[in-house]
Amino acid sequence: MVNEVIARRNIKRMAAKARKNNVELTPHFKTHQSKHISGWFKDEGIKSITVSSVSMAGYFADNGWQQITIAFPVNILEIKKIAILAAKVQLTLLVTSREQINVLLREIEVYLRILIEIDCGSNRSGVDPDNSNLIGEMITQLSNSQHHFKGFYSHFGHTYSARSNKEVEQTYTSSKNLLDDLMHRHAYAQPTLSIGDTPSCSLISNFTDVKSIHAGNFVFYDLTQVAIGSCKEEDIAIALACPVVSKNENRSELIVYGGGVHLSKESLFDRELEQDIYGRPVLLTDNGWSASLPGCFVHSLSQEHGVVRLTKEAFDSIHVGDLIGILPIHSCMTADVMCGYVDLAGKNVDHFKAQWAS
Amino acid sequence: MVNEVIARRNIKRMAAKARKNNVELTPHFKTHQSKHISGWFKDEGIKSITVSSVSMAGYFADNGWQQITIAFPVNILEIKKIAILAAKVQLTLLVTSREQINVLLREIEVYLRILIEIDCGSNRSGVDPDNSNLIGEMITQLSNSQHHFKGFYSHFGHTYSARSNKEVEQTYTSSKNLLDDLMHRHAYAQPTLSIGDTPSCSLISNFTDVKSIHAGNFVFYDLTQVAIGSCKEEDIAIALACPVVSKNENRSELIVYGGGVHLSKESLFDRELEQDIYGRPVLLTDNGWSASLPGCFVHSLSQEHGVVRLTKEAFDSIHVGDLIGILPIHSCMTADVMCGYVDLAGKNVDHFKAQWAS
Repeated sequence: MVNEVIARRNIKRMAAKARKNNVELTPHFKTHQSKHISGWFKDEGIKSITVSSVSMAGYFADNGWQQITIAFPVNILEIKKIAILAAKVQLTLLVTSREQINVLLREIEVYLRILIEIDCGSNRSGVDPDNSNLIGEMITQLSNSQHHFKGFYSHFGHTYSARSNKEVEQTYTSSKNLLDDLMHRHAYAQPTLSIGDTPSCSLISNFTDVKSIHAGNFVFYDLTQVAIGSCKEEDIAIALACPVVSKNENRSELIVYGGGVHLSKESLFDRELEQDIYGRPVLLTDNGWSASLPGCFVHSLSQEHGVVRLTKEAFDSIHVGDLIGILPIHSCMTADVMCGYVDLAGKNVDHFKAQWAS
Repeated sequence: MVNEVIARRNIKRMAAKARKNNVELTPHFKTHQSKHISGWFKDEGIKSITVSSVSMAGYFADNGWQQITIAFPVNILEIKKIAILAAKVQLTLLVTSREQINVLLREIEVYLRILIEIDCGSNRSGVDPDNSNLIGEMITQLSNSQHHFKGFYSHFGHTYSARSNKEVEQTYTSSKNLLDDLMHRHAYAQPTLSIGDTPSCSLISNFTDVKSIHAGNFVFYDLTQVAIGSCKEEDIAIALACPVVSKNENRSELIVYGGGVHLSKESLFDRELEQDIYGRPVLLTDNGWSASLPGCFVHSLSQEHGVVRLTKEAFDSIHVGDLIGILPIHSCMTADVMCGYVDLAGKNVDHFKAQWAS
């Protein structure tokens, strides 16, 4: 279930923050992956978007989006698909090596905007910011080509291990310092900067020298973001509706139809419970869902079973045949495995994966 | 990618074991969820199958399967769908409470076969085997009805924490003893017994007093089953093909297009590495894939990125633009998030979720 009121509020808040900071919000659509939901961004004046695959870019290009960044290192095996897409929309691509640039120079005639991805400590993809030689060579390669060196892209994914505003700020600052040095060293090429994990974008108030922010998760948020401090629980815009199929009085547990194939197997270490949890139960209401039930949590998931541990009070008030909601640990993954949504009026909302899957 | 030769060998071995033990193999199709792959079971004489949802039962009913057990506690919210399905195929259902039986008695006129699910220690769904009163009442309810009390169903899911043949045997024996007592106490009702996690079905040689086994994972196996000892690595019948998009020499890591939305976020604690891993890389060959590369493993996954840590030797031999394979931690989940397969000839193979999603 997606709560449009909450999602629109989340979008509006981030768009306002971007305007105030004079940065462009280029939201990452890998979270919702939905044409219908993309309209809520359009309503806030968003023109430029971020996606995580060539085929996802195609999905939104078909929906009229004209400025698309594929925030994944160019997969040279898809070069033909990229060429077709580049002829249709204004495409920005990420590179992490000279080999990729060679292929783009050789195979794509259409003007491309290219960002060099930098790894500021998330230890995923991206060039080491201290590798000035390589970065300089890549810039030279691009500057002498038919394409445009646009600047640097970095995802501070290590903010996800933060558990307070202060920890997010520390990670942001240390990562941003690396980028500032880099920008200074390569100032001759007039690079721009695109950053934008949801914790930073939610908690940092000042984006000095940043051109665009590409956060995505904030449209829905989730329990991980609540634990980080990026949002409040009432900002979570999706919940999984689960039928209660069985109750276990001895363990004060519900068995729900809602397992790893519905929520994904993402977990979150809960400091109070001192264990991993897989979601938190809420009660469904006429206009959405309640706050999470105090002291209650999803204890374990198998493929299609969810085990929800409840307080005695909650256990007695929920019955076999009821529908309950579960707030997800990671909304992007839950939306992806569900391949779709219903809004609160019961109307189906599209998801890219349903098309991908069929 | 699915390797038909390996999958058929796995099916043949389990079918032969079932025949030798004079138990019926009623394989759980939630692992492959594929009409095409179900044909490989048909070729081994399988007539009766197990699924995990009413809609999955419908998928296989449409494919001509006539004897179907839905191995999930009856969801009374789906009673109308169940009634329609029960009119088409020989349906066996699982119950865990008197409420569910009341609904089945009231709402379904067609003859149903009913199993009472028993929890022998996996702490998921099922009635406590010591709860003789409740079980006796449920049997009486069913015996006086239009439906048939078929017996007991139990999934020994706690075998998944075993890490040796001996540990699987211990869990099997203690769980089976609980069921033997139960069968003895309720012998008057002539119950039959259906059990069948993949570790037990792979490793136990003697299924005394068991009527049917409903294992599913064995068709593909995976790294979890290798760790348990249920199979060898060469019995794993699926691998995820991943493009190499980037290399990080300092960390001796590949970045592949292959993340949580492709492999699922299932992990496995590796005792040698003393950390969680998310898969193991293999090289693709003309007729499938190699053994896993020694000392190499999937270190982390985000939504669409996979980080594969390699030995120096492996790192030097793999290049950007190569395709590598990844053996999954949990094949059921990987197949589910991918919503489909290709066989080694490149032909698409169906998956139920693609239909569910679209």
